[in-house]
Parts: sequence; structure tokens; C-alpha cells
Amino acid sequence: MKGRCVIVTGVPGVGKTTVVNGALKLLDGEGISYKTLNFGTYMFEIAQKEGIAKDRDEMRRLQKDIQKKLQKHAAQAMAKEEGNVLIDTHASVKTPNGYLAGLPEWVLRELMPDTIVLVETNEDQILIRRLTDETRTRDLEGSYSIGEHQQFNRAIAAAYSMMTGCTIKYITNADLLLEKAVEDMAAVLR
Amino acid sequence: MKGRCVIVTGVPGVGKTTVVNGALKLLDGEGISYKTLNFGTYMFEIAQKEGIAKDRDEMRRLQKDIQKKLQKHAAQAMAKEEGNVLIDTHASVKTPNGYLAGLPEWVLRELMPDTIVLVETNEDQILIRRLTDETRTRDLEGSYSIGEHQQFNRAIAAAYSMMTGCTIKYITNADLLLEKAVEDMAAVLR
Amino acid sequence: MKGRCVIVTGVPGVGKTTVVNGALKLLDGEGISYKTLNFGTYMFEIAQKEGIAKDRDEMRRLQKDIQKKLQKHAAQAMAKEEGNVLIDTHASVKTPNGYLAGLPEWVLRELMPDTIVLVETNEDQILIRRLTDETRTRDLEGSYSIGEHQQFNRAIAAAYSMMTGCTIKYITNADLLLEKAVEDMAAVLR
Repeated sequence: MKGRCVIVTGVPGVGKTTVVNGALKLLDGEGISYKTLNFGTYMFEIAQKEGIAKDRDEMRRLQKDIQKKLQKHAAQAMAKEEGNVLIDTHASVKTPNGYLAGLPEWVLRELMPDTIVLVETNEDQILIRRLTDETRTRDLEGSYSIGEHQQFNRAIAAAYSMMTGCTIKYITNADLLLEKAVEDMAAVLR
Repeated sequence: MKGRCVIVTGVPGVGKTTVVNGALKLLDGEGISYKTLNFGTYMFEIAQKEGIAKDRDEMRRLQKDIQKKLQKHAAQAMAKEEGNVLIDTHASVKTPNGYLAGLPEWVLRELMPDTIVLVETNEDQILIRRLTDETRTRDLEGSYSIGEHQQFNRAIAAAYSMMTGCTIKYITNADLLLEKAVEDMAAVLR
Repeated sequence: MKGRCVIVTGVPGVGKTTVVNGALKLLDGEGISYKTLNFGTYMFEIAQKEGIAKDRDEMRRLQKDIQKKLQKHAAQAMAKEEGNVLIDTHASVKTPNGYLAGLPEWVLRELMPDTIVLVETNEDQILIRRLTDETRTRDLEGSYSIGEHQQFNRAIAAAYSMMTGCTIKYITNADLLLEKAVEDMAAVLR
């Protein structure tokens, strides 16, 4: 990878994709382009290629060691992509057994990103966005719990920064201020 | 270690042992068992076996490098225990020179836990529990300071998760709701 | 380095230097001395010696890999200093692309500090101090943003502690209570 590597994260419902797409459109007009990679999708493609898993369910049920190796391989392959790369993933994932690091050490060492972005907003706004989004069924979670998840993401992002030397950028995607979020994202990618 | 490895942490007075014992009793009825290890005790036993320290005071006064080696050896021995292991320790310890990591990198790399649990509750409840516990003499600490310690534990737990890929589970042990905490702990261990 | 290594950090305007100087003066009377090193200055001197950069601007524009190597060399040289060492630096630096780790992994592994101090105070007090300090021109930043920066520093300090086993000490430098901050700092260095 000779271009820049920016990882974009955000809890479900914060509007990460909308902000990213807006920013990429803006940059397109300026002649700046990024290849967007979804970490989960990319990992699944590697799993299929290596004959490790046939579908996503199978991938989730892999033994811990194999999953780890798969994550590492996916990160290595991503790091070889040419030009600017934007990786869409989660700082952490909420599971029944607690928060799971989206970017564990062995993934970070391969990717060595320039910047990790946390798209955030007030937890109440996220709650309402989730409740009114009819295109997806999400686990029901209260405001308090969403806020806690965002706090965890800030903490783990700090650890990511220690490990890689990348910068950690908070971008607020507040109600009625999408344009501001898009501009902030474009400024990071520019 | 072929079973699961769960590390349980919590500031003094939060009721960690009560919650753990309740959960283990519950699981016992379901045929699930865990070997409970106390990190400090385990380390001391290793220190005695290796002829490094005769008592706990001597262990605390060891040179930094020797202490580090001892921690690593203890972690390696723990990782060799068969079956499910529950390790009782602290996410961080409050010392006169500040917070000390309970699970530094060289310990984590050996243990590679599945989950780290943070038993928590409102700092005022912890304060009252400490003041009314006549079986132990603890350093006097105000609510604000207890809250700060719990915050530090959340932050360092996020770093632990980055390093090992383990999940971080917060379990609340609130007044009058011990049964809920026990059930939550059992769910993690199940 | 056979003495102690203490790293002192704090956001601009918190009064870090005043607290450090007060503490060192106090300790001087007790026959305890520290060599104070500024990480940035030290790094620049190494850069000049190695012919990597002629001025600080050039140093900031170095390629990422070279900057990383330079940071590592500076840390290695600092670790070789005899006696007690106090390193003046930042837990994180606020840049247009987000927070940048002041002590990334490759620096920490060389320094392996005993303690990292975070000099802190209420964000409003810092704001006022910045606005009334006519000796320096600083970027204008609101209270909320200063508070956020201090929170990030606490989170990343926890990660530093996990990586090195150093203790993390918060020292409050509140208005009208400089003497208390100086005494707390002296206690850490003593």
C-alpha cells in the first residue's frame, strides 16, 4: 500500500456509511479516490479462497486460532492494496460475552493505518435512528447501553493508537448536521 | 489449557467473590465446573517453588525484572491448567505511585483469556460496602476516587482486549440485585 | 539507566512545567536529583546528529518510517542516560487528523518507564489559563474539547500501563492549589 489507509468505525445506526459515501462523492470531484473495503466481507472472501469457510455462519463458528489466522491473512491482503484505502469496520462488536475488539493487535500490525475515525453522536439520536430504520432488524438496546458502547470504542481506539501510531479522529454525525460530518470526513481523507 | 479461560476483576469491596461463588454453585448443578485460581496466590506459590521469595512481603520487594519474570512464569503455569479456568485478579491496583496494570502485556500473552469480566457497581454502594465490612481493613477512599478507579479499569480492559482478542464483559453487582449479577456471571461462564 | 524513569505529561496550559520545577526544587533540598529531558528536543538533537533533519519543520515533514526510526533511536538514547530521568512529553498530541499517541509502542518498549504522570485539572481552568497566557500563542479550543483531550489521555495512559507495567498517576494542578500539586509530584519522584 503506497497510499493512505484510513479505518472508519462507528456503532450500528450512527450513519457511518452515509457519511463515508458523502465524503467520497465530494472527494471524487476533487480527483481524490479511495478504494473502500469492508473488513468482514474481505475476510469472508479470503476464507472462501482458502477453503476455510463456505458461508458467513461457518466463518463465525471457526476455531479461535483459525479465525485469528484468517483475520491476519485478510489484513495482510488489505495492506497490499494499491492506492488510498478506506476500511469499513467496527472499533468493537457487542457480543453476549462482552465487547470484542474489532482491530486486535495482530490485525493492527498488518494494517498500520494512518488514521482511525470514530463516527459518533449522542446516544439518544442513535437510539431513534435504530428504531426508525425499517430496512434492518437490530438487537434492541437502550440509550445508556449505546453510550457505554461508544465509551468503550473511545477507550479501545486509544489503545489502537498506542500500538500503531495512527491518529484517532472523532467525527460527530449529529441530527440535521450531516453536511458538517461529511465535510469533516472529507477533511480527514483529503 | 483446552477449556475456557475467564478472568474476573473488580475493585475491592464490589463483591466479586460473592458473585463468582454464586455463579459457580449454579453451574455446579448443571455439571459445568471451573478451577478457580487467584493470581496473587498462584504467583506466590511459584515464587516459593523457584526459591525466589519466602513470604509475600519479600515477593513485593523483588526487583522489577525478577517480578516480571515471576509474573510470566505464573501465567505460563496457569495456561497449562486443564479444563475451564477462572482467574481471580485485579484489572489494576491502586498504589501510592498510581494505577498499576493487573494484566501487563507479558502476562496477557501467556494467558490469552477468552473473556475478562469487570464486576462493577455505583461507587457510593462500594463505599458503603467497604465501610460496613468489618472483616477487612481497607485503605480509606472516597466515592469519587472509587469511581475514578473503575473508569481506569474500563480503559485498561479495552487495551487488554486489543492485545488478546478477548471479550470485555461488564457485570453490575448492584445493591439488592445480587441474583441478577450471579445469573449474568453464570451466563458468561456457561 | 539505573535510576528511575518518570514521564510527565499534560495538555498545553495545565501548568506541567511549573509543577515539575516546583517539585524538583523541593527534592533538590533533599539531595534527590533528576535529569530533565524534553522528548521533542531530544529527538531533534538525535535527528541533527544523524543528519536526518536540519530544523524542526524538516523533522515534522519526515516520512513516517523515518520518523518512527528516529523516535526509537531517541528513546534508546534516553534509556541510556544515567541516574534518575524525568521525561517531559505529551500523552497525546491534538492534530487536524485526530489525537496522535505521544508514546507509541516502539517508544515505550525502549523507555519502559516506572511511572507516567498525567498533570490535569478542570477544563475550564485550563481554558482560562490559556486565554490569559500572553507568552504563548495557542490554538483556540473550547472547554469541551479540552476535557475530551484529557479523557483521551487517560484512556491512552491505561494502554501505556498495560504495555510497560508502569504506574499511571493523576496529579491535579487546580487553581490556588499549586503547592499541593508540587507536593504530589515530589512524592512520585521521591
